[in-house]
Amino acid sequence: MRLLRVGPDGHETPALLAADGTLRDLSAHIDDIAGAALAPGGLDRLRGIDPAALPALDSGARIGPCVGRVGKFICIGLNYADHAAESGMEVPKEPVIFMKATSAISGPNDPVELPPGAEKADWEVELGVVIGAPAREVAEADALSHVAGYCVVNDLSERAFQLERGGQWVKGKSADTFGPIGPWLVTADEVADPARLSMWLDLNGERMQDGSTETMVFGVAELVSYLSHFMSLQPGDIISTGTPPGVGLGQTPPRFLRAGDEMRLGIEGLGEQCQTVRAR
Amino acid sequence: MRLLRVGPDGHETPALLAADGTLRDLSAHIDDIAGAALAPGGLDRLRGIDPAALPALDSGARIGPCVGRVGKFICIGLNYADHAAESGMEVPKEPVIFMKATSAISGPNDPVELPPGAEKADWEVELGVVIGAPAREVAEADALSHVAGYCVVNDLSERAFQLERGGQWVKGKSADTFGPIGPWLVTADEVADPARLSMWLDLNGERMQDGSTETMVFGVAELVSYLSHFMSLQPGDIISTGTPPGVGLGQTPPRFLRAGDEMRLGIEGLGEQCQTVRAR
Repeated sequence: MRLLRVGPDGHETPALLAADGTLRDLSAHIDDIAGAALAPGGLDRLRGIDPAALPALDSGARIGPCVGRVGKFICIGLNYADHAAESGMEVPKEPVIFMKATSAISGPNDPVELPPGAEKADWEVELGVVIGAPAREVAEADALSHVAGYCVVNDLSERAFQLERGGQWVKGKSADTFGPIGPWLVTADEVADPARLSMWLDLNGERMQDGSTETMVFGVAELVSYLSHFMSLQPGDIISTGTPPGVGLGQTPPRFLRAGDEMRLGIEGLGEQCQTVRAR
Repeated sequence: MRLLRVGPDGHETPALLAADGTLRDLSAHIDDIAGAALAPGGLDRLRGIDPAALPALDSGARIGPCVGRVGKFICIGLNYADHAAESGMEVPKEPVIFMKATSAISGPNDPVELPPGAEKADWEVELGVVIGAPAREVAEADALSHVAGYCVVNDLSERAFQLERGGQWVKGKSADTFGPIGPWLVTADEVADPARLSMWLDLNGERMQDGSTETMVFGVAELVSYLSHFMSLQPGDIISTGTPPGVGLGQTPPRFLRAGDEMRLGIEGLGEQCQTVRAR
């Protein structure tokens, strides 16, 4: 299934993108694409619904973030060897974990707003993993059974806030609109191999990132298992699994986002995002 | 007002601790001590209620975390000069921000559980600031008007996970039960000066931390304003403002939590917590 949320910011309707391309309203069945609806039983109930029996929604409606009430927005740093190299950092021996503020989450095509002083804003196309079943100390072999599905994430960063203002990366990762997720959550049963997905990002029509999850250092199962030993994971938590090479910080000279720029990014089978950049 | 949540884990009832020491049930008025109930209008409505007209609750009930549906659990690192010194780190030039997983939040007297391999778990009594009105790019002079109130936080840490496992501090701050908050949220109007509160923590009856918010490097108004320039703050977000000297890592030799230990901690006017430590 491709699950999404459509409508005005903060008032999205849970929806399903049917095989025929129509948008179908799930609000008679679930209150949101969130929490228990993402647990295995919840997804099974949705699978039992005939899409044709659901009310159609306006296909031109705004698409919101594909998951609501996200409890944790966890990111993995330097998880592609080539990206670590372009950042001038070593490939980590074990996963680097950091957080984005959940208030940074926005829709896949919403504008990205540069906060005052953001001179070094940067893009990062990433595979997002959405947790379905609660996970605590799960083994790698069981980890994928805790995954509801996958989505595209643009893990926007302000590099000066992240790296030059003291302390921890969260400072440069958390501005409002710095976390577009979606367009939709593709359930795990429809993603044959999360370790073999091509991914790309274009800035103003120029290909900046062109990679594949094949080159991830730590794979999805390993990451879910690893994380679950440091914190419990709940349905609707999102893990953004790192970015391949081609970010702005890695260019010579570095290149950062300016008002008017357009990012278009996507992952094989998971859809595309498009954001225009503007000053806040 | 002293606002709290009582009852079984995950099913707490919003309550008010009346001046006469009785617990009063607020559930006819608000669904939780959370979100809009913490915004200025929400708190004003609660102030208009006569506590004697509210149903009494069992004063022996478990006390849960004093805020529900916390969106962000933000911490400030090294915010007491003496604590920075005992940690072998410099006093930061601007606030160090890190996150705890919101899933770490627990009740003030719930057991603290050591996850497998947690050999260096440590205590930190901290002043918690609970956001009331949404805040984005607020000036320091206006910042306190965005604060709903204050509470005690024990910012538990696993120092090896935090400092020896690569990357960012969140890894050692986020285990389940590593974030007791409460016993109650004291509304800001009842805290004459958040920069003049004594605070302490006893381990097995021995005083380990004995400080005051007077020695904070960055004060509450400065922190709220500063944070609001990097991420927006929403009602129910919690900012834990750092710890005074006396943590286990700062002892000679270092001293860490073991199953059976008892922590008792408090802040002037904000109540006390008591946790026993056990293996998970």
